[in-house]
Amino acid sequence: MRFLSQTSYDDVTEQLFTLGEIPGVLWTPAGAAGTRPLVLMGHGGGQHKKAPGIAVRARRFAAECGFAVAAVDVPGHGDRPTEDEYDRLATENQARVAAGEELAPLIADFQAMVARRTVPEWSAVLDALQELEHVGSGPVGYWGVSLGCGLGVPFVAAEPRVRAAVLGLGGVLASAGPAARITVPVEFLVQWDDERVPREQCLALFDALGSAEKTLHANPGAHAEIPAFELDSTLRFFARHLDPESSGASA
Amino acid sequence: MRFLSQTSYDDVTEQLFTLGEIPGVLWTPAGAAGTRPLVLMGHGGGQHKKAPGIAVRARRFAAECGFAVAAVDVPGHGDRPTEDEYDRLATENQARVAAGEELAPLIADFQAMVARRTVPEWSAVLDALQELEHVGSGPVGYWGVSLGCGLGVPFVAAEPRVRAAVLGLGGVLASAGPAARITVPVEFLVQWDDERVPREQCLALFDALGSAEKTLHANPGAHAEIPAFELDSTLRFFARHLDPESSGASA
Repeated sequence: MRFLSQTSYDDVTEQLFTLGEIPGVLWTPAGAAGTRPLVLMGHGGGQHKKAPGIAVRARRFAAECGFAVAAVDVPGHGDRPTEDEYDRLATENQARVAAGEELAPLIADFQAMVARRTVPEWSAVLDALQELEHVGSGPVGYWGVSLGCGLGVPFVAAEPRVRAAVLGLGGVLASAGPAARITVPVEFLVQWDDERVPREQCLALFDALGSAEKTLHANPGAHAEIPAFELDSTLRFFARHLDPESSGASA
Repeated sequence: MRFLSQTSYDDVTEQLFTLGEIPGVLWTPAGAAGTRPLVLMGHGGGQHKKAPGIAVRARRFAAECGFAVAAVDVPGHGDRPTEDEYDRLATENQARVAAGEELAPLIADFQAMVARRTVPEWSAVLDALQELEHVGSGPVGYWGVSLGCGLGVPFVAAEPRVRAAVLGLGGVLASAGPAARITVPVEFLVQWDDERVPREQCLALFDALGSAEKTLHANPGAHAEIPAFELDSTLRFFARHLDPESSGASA
């Protein structure tokens, strides 16, 4: 793991790193020392490790919960080289949708293929981050919606260090098998008018989760329109499950 | 409005009252003076104004949010006389279910009939409570699930003083019309394995709500098994909508 830069904000420090060919970013509370919960975040399709939807949440997890938070670029995204195979598939899929095929199964197949690379990559990132003095081997959370859910479901199913996950905006098609193997608490976000993932497939993915504690939050609006108050809920969810001592009895 | 008794707990005062033939209870923070938000709570079928599911929530709304909270017995429930017509219908419905009819439409018809009495009763209760010095004419919230949802949907639709509502565990059958007239923010609770209200009918009632801001929280478990963390969420929901100044930007 190699650190490329460090930027300090009022209450959060942001470090860019690479682990082998994987570019990543680590946010920690300013002056952090010692072991703390770590939240890994998976970005959406066409986005990257520092997309606004990632960075805004990451800084609040670090500043308000005291967590370490990390995100890495998915293959073919952000600072990573383009992937000819992904581009070819994307072009093919556009043509198939134009010809009348449903989008959701094509997205599901694509995400399952990418997950075969990201699951081991993300576990290697956890290994490296947890060796840092200001991260350590504390409880791990995962946050990811849309592509971050499609890649997150197999990751959470495979990675025993993850104790709680926020997932959503994803369908059941590619994920039913790994979803059933997830047993940790999940907060699952559904956009009621999602134009990309059919509502029934979102509800079916929630249904498929093996977790005894899972809670579905559905709100009106399109795929990208998660309301701001859900971030407050996510903060409390992670605080309750990753840092129960500090979150109080009613958190 | 006539007060029958007053009991003081550490941080909450409980007053029993009658308004005409309606028995009710009012919880306020200890030593409350002046105008404050008021939450009216509707109890479940076969329950009453001081059932544990009501009283536990009411005391937290009063103690932690500083609200006034009231609940009254629905006709045929609690301290009210039995209603021969309701009892006859209940017996008839049991026979119809035993003969193979679906339960949900029978419940819906029953609740619609009761609502024709409770909607005006509850508005009269608001009138009387808001004349009290320690309640006043502040914003009003409504909380009710199951029967409290079946009666609450037409009440919230009809009562312009209600600014926010927590509803749930109810189906669309009797409620689609009034639900479409509700425009205030709603937090809507669904039990994923509800044995009394089919999941599809719960989701359809959420869908039917006319509110621009509505949020559905679904959790595994049976009708009566709402998880404890939903009460924390309800507290924040009411604080955000009934008392925005005190709840902070991120509440």
